Amino acid sequence: MNQTLSEQILSHAAGREVRAGELVVVRPDVVMSHDSLSPSIIQILREEMGIHNVKDPGQLVIVFDHVAPASTVGTANAQNRVRAFAREQGIRLFDVGRGICHQVLVEEGIAAPGKIVLGSDSHSTSYGSVGAFGAGMGSTDIALTWGTGRNWLRVPETVRVQVRGRFGAFIDAKDLALKVCRELRISGANYMAVEYHGLDWLALPGRQTLASMAVEVGAKVGILPPFGEAMKHYEVPDWLSVDPGASYTRSLEIDLDELEPQVAIPHAVDNVADLAQVAGTPVSVVFLGTCTNGRYTDLRQTADLLRGRRVDPRVRFVVTPASSVEMSRAAADGTLETLLAAGAILSTPGCGPCMGRHMGTLGDEDVCLSTANRNFKGRMGAPTSQIYLASPAVAAATALTGVITDPRSL
Amino acid sequence: MNQTLSEQILSHAAGREVRAGELVVVRPDVVMSHDSLSPSIIQILREEMGIHNVKDPGQLVIVFDHVAPASTVGTANAQNRVRAFAREQGIRLFDVGRGICHQVLVEEGIAAPGKIVLGSDSHSTSYGSVGAFGAGMGSTDIALTWGTGRNWLRVPETVRVQVRGRFGAFIDAKDLALKVCRELRISGANYMAVEYHGLDWLALPGRQTLASMAVEVGAKVGILPPFGEAMKHYEVPDWLSVDPGASYTRSLEIDLDELEPQVAIPHAVDNVADLAQVAGTPVSVVFLGTCTNGRYTDLRQTADLLRGRRVDPRVRFVVTPASSVEMSRAAADGTLETLLAAGAILSTPGCGPCMGRHMGTLGDEDVCLSTANRNFKGRMGAPTSQIYLASPAVAAATALTGVITDPRSL
Repeated sequence: MNQTLSEQILSHAAGREVRAGELVVVRPDVVMSHDSLSPSIIQILREEMGIHNVKDPGQLVIVFDHVAPASTVGTANAQNRVRAFAREQGIRLFDVGRGICHQVLVEEGIAAPGKIVLGSDSHSTSYGSVGAFGAGMGSTDIALTWGTGRNWLRVPETVRVQVRGRFGAFIDAKDLALKVCRELRISGANYMAVEYHGLDWLALPGRQTLASMAVEVGAKVGILPPFGEAMKHYEVPDWLSVDPGASYTRSLEIDLDELEPQVAIPHAVDNVADLAQVAGTPVSVVFLGTCTNGRYTDLRQTADLLRGRRVDPRVRFVVTPASSVEMSRAAADGTLETLLAAGAILSTPGCGPCMGRHMGTLGDEDVCLSTANRNFKGRMGAPTSQIYLASPAVAAATALTGVITDPRSL
Repeated sequence: MNQTLSEQILSHAAGREVRAGELVVVRPDVVMSHDSLSPSIIQILREEMGIHNVKDPGQLVIVFDHVAPASTVGTANAQNRVRAFAREQGIRLFDVGRGICHQVLVEEGIAAPGKIVLGSDSHSTSYGSVGAFGAGMGSTDIALTWGTGRNWLRVPETVRVQVRGRFGAFIDAKDLALKVCRELRISGANYMAVEYHGLDWLALPGRQTLASMAVEVGAKVGILPPFGEAMKHYEVPDWLSVDPGASYTRSLEIDLDELEPQVAIPHAVDNVADLAQVAGTPVSVVFLGTCTNGRYTDLRQTADLLRGRRVDPRVRFVVTPASSVEMSRAAADGTLETLLAAGAILSTPGCGPCMGRHMGTLGDEDVCLSTANRNFKGRMGAPTSQIYLASPAVAAATALTGVITDPRSL
């Protein structure tokens, strides 16, 4: 009674009613890891913890998305070791090209309302898009969960974000996510849950954008109530609901009708301004992709803006679909064709250049407008490169002009 | 009179009748370089030769295909330097994602019958597919040509390959190219031209496969007479023809009706056997792509074999289209969709993992069946990895089964 979504989910998992601040030991429904950390998780499990076998292979999922396909012999060898481990232990593996872990787990129905999904990736908050308790953990914690089937969590306090109104033309969930970073700042929700309300009308891709970026204000969880049109095919446990008596550490109200296109300015995700303040800034790279904004709807919106036009010759416009399923949808309806015709650079579904490890690493003087979730110094390559974060519509407009551009001005 | 195709082209360029063995100084029509060597060519030109400006920017073409998009800060910086140089000098640049240099120059009509096209890439023999004298040179020679507009060539002797018959089902130009490697061996045509006859019926992609692989027997040039259906839209200079009186160093006859699927076995391109000898060999990677076999027709044939089936889960099947144009064609008719549905890993048009520098670098124990042109030790990554070379049809069949498979047995 009188519980936030996170309190409800952790209470159910713990078998007792818990409140923010309490510690619980739970058996997560899913433990996800990817190619980047699975090698060290295996090492910690076996060499440091002395545990040879995972407790429950059915609880585990591994996705290869970070440097996929491999770009060095070292990454190739590391991935081969993880493949052998997964085969030996009976762990489900989504191999190179299937897509970004957070997209794949939602597509495959592995993340679902009320479940606890831990991941060896900070953007595991993404699973809150479907009403799961999704949280990132480090390699040691994931190894512990592999070995014991369980882990402990502190029940998070919750920041409530109450949204009103509707997005204007070319404004979307990314602008809202950046606006929340602007309001809460980078540590504004440290180890809390960010719970969005007033968005039952929002489609799944927008929900994923919001949940993924919750970690950028320090949150452990970013969650939307699993109700409304986008969630109608999901089974929601009867113990999970929006409880009007829940108590929140803080409440933030945002009126979408007044929301302008937002841009995060180098080198912090919460260094956010209205686009107008940085309009005209020249860029050398535009990147459309990641767990935040690499889905079919993002590609499609971009293609609609690019149709019949050409990417500015000063710009490399890298487009990395979030998954093979999203890429297939874009292939089926001509979206890929339109993107290619406009001069976009398509790449293998996965994380792409988000971490600067391949497929578009930034050089010393590169300036990138990215739809990703982080613009830390050196995140995509050279420490002197610069990253601006914005929505797919802003990315498309910027790719066309070579300078940061308001899509409403096209 | 009584000249090979190479002698005719070099005579025309030299302004006098020349024969095999003579030295000529010519002004090549096109000088191509790519991202991998352009940085060193610029350095040689400016620092070692002391020449600041290229002689004729209109003669030069630069294509970014080798590590494109960049996979490290170093490659990103090198590419940015080349971009700046090209802009400053007025050199035409096909940037990241446009495709493999040899494919782009043919698509754009830059390589054409009777032209001399030098490239900073050994597979510049590819331009012989359209009846050009295409030859690879090292960075120093390319820098010399940038600086002076000219270079010297020894007029090559010619090996004539006389082809009879037609390909059987699932046998194609790649099998013929490998058969020629098997017959001539790796140095069998050192600094010679390999001139193919009896193939006026062959479509352009097959012509490109044959010309590209001529360098694998040591040839300076691989050339087909620019006549027949595939060449009907090309303008052929009236001084270029098949001269019955031409003299050849060696003649090789190959009957396509008797040609079996060919496979090059690690670690040499001329270590070729009928597929039957290696059928059943397990592989971990299948790679469809490169200037030899990454065109729409290759992708389409593969998709036809994969339709309704799934890539074997033990295999990563990397598909790298040769260019954005070829990828667009594959997007337009559902080929990409079929490949994705079967579990193929699509990647950015370019050289892909051919040189092991990204997008599918091989690990220590990987075994790859590739449609590329080279299987040297460590070519695609780890020195202990193994590469088998074969046709797209064999690649598709092998991707489906996880072991080297004759497509006729599917």
